[in-house]
Amino acid sequence: MKILITSGGTTEKIDSVRGITNHATGSLGKYIAEAFLEKGNHVTLVTTKEAVKPADHPLLTVHTITNVDSLLKTLEPLVKTHDVFIHSMAVSDYTPVYMTDLNEVEQAEHVSDLLNRQNTESKISSKEEYQVLFMKKTPKVISLVKSWNPDICLIGFKLLVNVSKEELFAVARESLQKNKARYILANDLTEIKGEQHHAYLLDESHVYEANTKKAIANLIFERVTNHD
Amino acid sequence: MKILITSGGTTEKIDSVRGITNHATGSLGKYIAEAFLEKGNHVTLVTTKEAVKPADHPLLTVHTITNVDSLLKTLEPLVKTHDVFIHSMAVSDYTPVYMTDLNEVEQAEHVSDLLNRQNTESKISSKEEYQVLFMKKTPKVISLVKSWNPDICLIGFKLLVNVSKEELFAVARESLQKNKARYILANDLTEIKGEQHHAYLLDESHVYEANTKKAIANLIFERVTNHD
Repeated sequence: MKILITSGGTTEKIDSVRGITNHATGSLGKYIAEAFLEKGNHVTLVTTKEAVKPADHPLLTVHTITNVDSLLKTLEPLVKTHDVFIHSMAVSDYTPVYMTDLNEVEQAEHVSDLLNRQNTESKISSKEEYQVLFMKKTPKVISLVKSWNPDICLIGFKLLVNVSKEELFAVARESLQKNKARYILANDLTEIKGEQHHAYLLDESHVYEANTKKAIANLIFERVTNHD
Repeated sequence: MKILITSGGTTEKIDSVRGITNHATGSLGKYIAEAFLEKGNHVTLVTTKEAVKPADHPLLTVHTITNVDSLLKTLEPLVKTHDVFIHSMAVSDYTPVYMTDLNEVEQAEHVSDLLNRQNTESKISSKEEYQVLFMKKTPKVISLVKSWNPDICLIGFKLLVNVSKEELFAVARESLQKNKARYILANDLTEIKGEQHHAYLLDESHVYEANTKKAIANLIFERVTNHD
């Protein structure tokens, strides 16, 4: 089986020195990759320079991306040629459009006009007391997967922060249906600390539970290989 | 001699999963630390979890910080007890205050009123097509150093992007005077690529030049130890 895994977090540039980053170490994706490699599967890992990665392995191919745009361009051909896609990467949901000072925002006739402006400086000046950054939603990668390859087995991830189990399950099952995923790995940031990582793997009618990153990796491996 | 060095780049949190990061690998700070350690100096390195660091060494102490606030709290007592401070860290110049959708900005009577609002959600929703992030200037670490310890030998860093040599020197010498630094290391992002790193070390009347990160580290070591 050919397994495609994403890990780490994307960064969207504000200018040549600053960016908006989604924090993610990449360690869960690393464990998932290792679980599949150990059993002789081909693994393609799409990750970032900063993320932790598995050791070199004859069955492992690594692609390095930076932002959502490079992620999309890298993923599309890979999704078409893999059997399973495990999308554990923390993907930026907004990307910078324009950064300016408070004065320009106050002077604008319509605030939305500023969305059509662009910074021309390579490094935006840091003289003003306040800055205002306008950001635009990025394309949702997970929603494109089935249009690229309707047959791929998709495992999505949903990370919420400090919500009830009911809300976490409801949001995960909404994602399951909308993105035609086989499973969603649902977790809450308040229940992640180092190797301790409480998570639920859900489909329409089942819930599987795990308490460490390694256990999550093994659970995903078992469920994916049971079904195929 | 007791040498205090900063390296890497700070991250200011937007919410529990997103942050604004200044990109910096920490490798120049690592080389500088190694140059001083090799000659038997005590080195204290203030850096980030993500930055590359020297190998363990009996004369090396490492402190890990995240954002400007934790950097300031960590540095103040250290600046008071060291002889030399080499500030190569890329420090965030703005920190998030409030993030909201376009509608709330358009509806505000005065845009500046939004600077008094605060996000209450742990993870800001990603439903809206646009988001607006209000940011406030952070304290300039380098400007506080001499108020903490008037006798410390201060080496500041100035990174500009795609400017003339004249402009780079003018900005560096302004920083030299304003912050009472012994030297400013002035460099342009367009002249940094991997180990290749063109930089000037300036005081009021001298300019020293180097072309690699290792050469910069050695140059700083030589100038600092020549003077003390």
